Amino acid sequence: VMSEHKQYTIAVIPGDGIGKEVTPWAQQALEKAAAGEAAFTYTNFDLGAERYLRDGEILPDEDLEAIKRTDAILLGAVGDPRVKAGVLERGLLLKLRFALDQYVNLRPSKLYKGVTSPLAEPGEIDFVVVREGTEGLYCGAGGAIRKGTEHEVATEVSINTAYGVERVVRYAFELAMKRRKHVTLVHKKNVLVNAGDMWQRIVDKVGEEYPEVTHDYNHIDAATIYLVNDPQRFDVILTDNLFGDILTDEAGAVVGGVGYSASGCINAINEYPSMFEPIHGSAPDIAGQGIANPTAAILSAAMLLRHLGFDDAAAKIDAAVEADIEELGSTTRTTDEVGRDILARI
Amino acid sequence: VMSEHKQYTIAVIPGDGIGKEVTPWAQQALEKAAAGEAAFTYTNFDLGAERYLRDGEILPDEDLEAIKRTDAILLGAVGDPRVKAGVLERGLLLKLRFALDQYVNLRPSKLYKGVTSPLAEPGEIDFVVVREGTEGLYCGAGGAIRKGTEHEVATEVSINTAYGVERVVRYAFELAMKRRKHVTLVHKKNVLVNAGDMWQRIVDKVGEEYPEVTHDYNHIDAATIYLVNDPQRFDVILTDNLFGDILTDEAGAVVGGVGYSASGCINAINEYPSMFEPIHGSAPDIAGQGIANPTAAILSAAMLLRHLGFDDAAAKIDAAVEADIEELGSTTRTTDEVGRDILARI
Ligand SMILES: CC(C)[C@H](C(=O)O)[C@@H](O)C(=O)O
Ligand SMILES: CC(C)[C@H](C(=O)O)[C@@H](O)C(=O)O
Repeated sequence: VMSEHKQYTIAVIPGDGIGKEVTPWAQQALEKAAAGEAAFTYTNFDLGAERYLRDGEILPDEDLEAIKRTDAILLGAVGDPRVKAGVLERGLLLKLRFALDQYVNLRPSKLYKGVTSPLAEPGEIDFVVVREGTEGLYCGAGGAIRKGTEHEVATEVSINTAYGVERVVRYAFELAMKRRKHVTLVHKKNVLVNAGDMWQRIVDKVGEEYPEVTHDYNHIDAATIYLVNDPQRFDVILTDNLFGDILTDEAGAVVGGVGYSASGCINAINEYPSMFEPIHGSAPDIAGQGIANPTAAILSAAMLLRHLGFDDAAAKIDAAVEADIEELGSTTRTTDEVGRDILARI
Repeated sequence: VMSEHKQYTIAVIPGDGIGKEVTPWAQQALEKAAAGEAAFTYTNFDLGAERYLRDGEILPDEDLEAIKRTDAILLGAVGDPRVKAGVLERGLLLKLRFALDQYVNLRPSKLYKGVTSPLAEPGEIDFVVVREGTEGLYCGAGGAIRKGTEHEVATEVSINTAYGVERVVRYAFELAMKRRKHVTLVHKKNVLVNAGDMWQRIVDKVGEEYPEVTHDYNHIDAATIYLVNDPQRFDVILTDNLFGDILTDEAGAVVGGVGYSASGCINAINEYPSMFEPIHGSAPDIAGQGIANPTAAILSAAMLLRHLGFDDAAAKIDAAVEADIEELGSTTRTTDEVGRDILARI
């Protein structure tokens, strides 16, 4: 009966381009998978490049405040070549991550049966990147002097705190306990000695509380090699904001395309809503044709459900996607066909 | 006749592990390829982990001064797990790059016939990464407060100057003129807006002086994807110090292993000697067994020759390596066997 369902409000930010085409399928997957357990009310937010180009607004304060009062956020994709690089990234995406203190950026990578990896002998690939989301080079702490002259100096500052690092390190070890119990710290501690040394010390310290979890370390440059020639070695990759950005895109390529990769920006203490989105962008080149693959968006709905505690409902979506890709992954289908095929299996 | 030969002094830093095993082959290749054109005198420098573990010295001032007086440097590889991360990197390798103002870090990536790439359908891969070598996050401009406490803050500062960026941008466009005339700037200008914006402006400005050269831009995260699924798109990749470090290792993996990749740290105005080395490390796991592949070291000798102006001699080495790999690349050979096989073709 309705009254026994848990009630949640979801902020929906379809965004631009194919974001608007795939997000409805994420909502439908959410509905169907959680039917009988949870009820969702949606609030749509008109944010992204189109909004910005129309009226110059990026993230009005009242929108941010309204988003803060929701239980979770579904994001499609944001971006348009007409908007200068950095405007929407810093004004909307990173603003949300920082304002909502989404300190865990969670990105699973899995090679599904039926997907052709660009690697010759991919083997079984199944790891998760736990990327720090609120520190590092993403703080916006930089500047420039004498701009436009031959004496210009531009800086970018990576800020890392024990507080910020320790909470994401703990998250990674907890996650590893539910998986194959291995954490790999990725950094560049031979050059970035201050931040790298702190990360390593905190991993060593927290690691002592998890004697069942083994942990090792790779430099970021070496990690990009292992992703190509030995991705099986990874279970939980733990890394900072920028290295996580780089590694997860490479990982997406290795498992056959970011079309199958979803991501969560998570406030793990639930002080603010967490945000779930496909890793792919707004893809202006194919927008409007109804051919974008909604799989990653649908997988982001599963992550949202898992975050709210509906593990079984999330597993239903994951299984439906897995079966769909294995059987039909190599066929050419429209957005709606893929959406319907996956929905039918939930 | 001897007296007509150009005379050069070469600083040789064999370093540690397999560095010591492959460097003699680089010297022999140098000798044979340049015979009749140039004469080399070698000065060996005992630097690296072994030296440091023995007497605590990393790069004595008198060694640095002596190295400054040479015409070029051949480096093997440096490193040992017993030395804490950062000590040799910052005290020796980066110290040399910075003290000798080696502002171009040049790293060609080529998929040789006979090498199995981990990619399923590699196609023809032949690009060069021009990595800035004296700025960015490699400056050592960072620090930590309240170290070891829960209130620790650690910073890393990326310093970028118009002076430093413009000279390496020019180098990249000049290089593109000798190749397929395309430059791709790789940065993360949507997040690192200060440095990224400066790089882009300088590329646009210098690009105007090279109307025959096209240029485009990729974010670093997208570039890691293209390296895996469309490496053919690249001719000259131009990027900063850290992104270059990451991309060149991934590129090494894509072309079948860093065993075939050499690198030059170049002071392009010849104010100080430039340094040439294989990209691989000291590989303690296989050191002492005589099985390290000297190909990358031999290729670094070719880069050295090209830098000194001996293009034909350099081409001889490149051709010998190419023929060797095509015919025998898949066979198991010792260091000396590979060395002798390549030498025989020069
Ligand atoms: C759009 C950009 C700001 C963002 C990032 O760098 O984090 C994106 O690349 C991502 O990985 O989510
Ligand atoms: C050893 C290290 C300092 C170095 C770097 O980061 O530049 C290495 O990875 C390289 O690419 O030459």
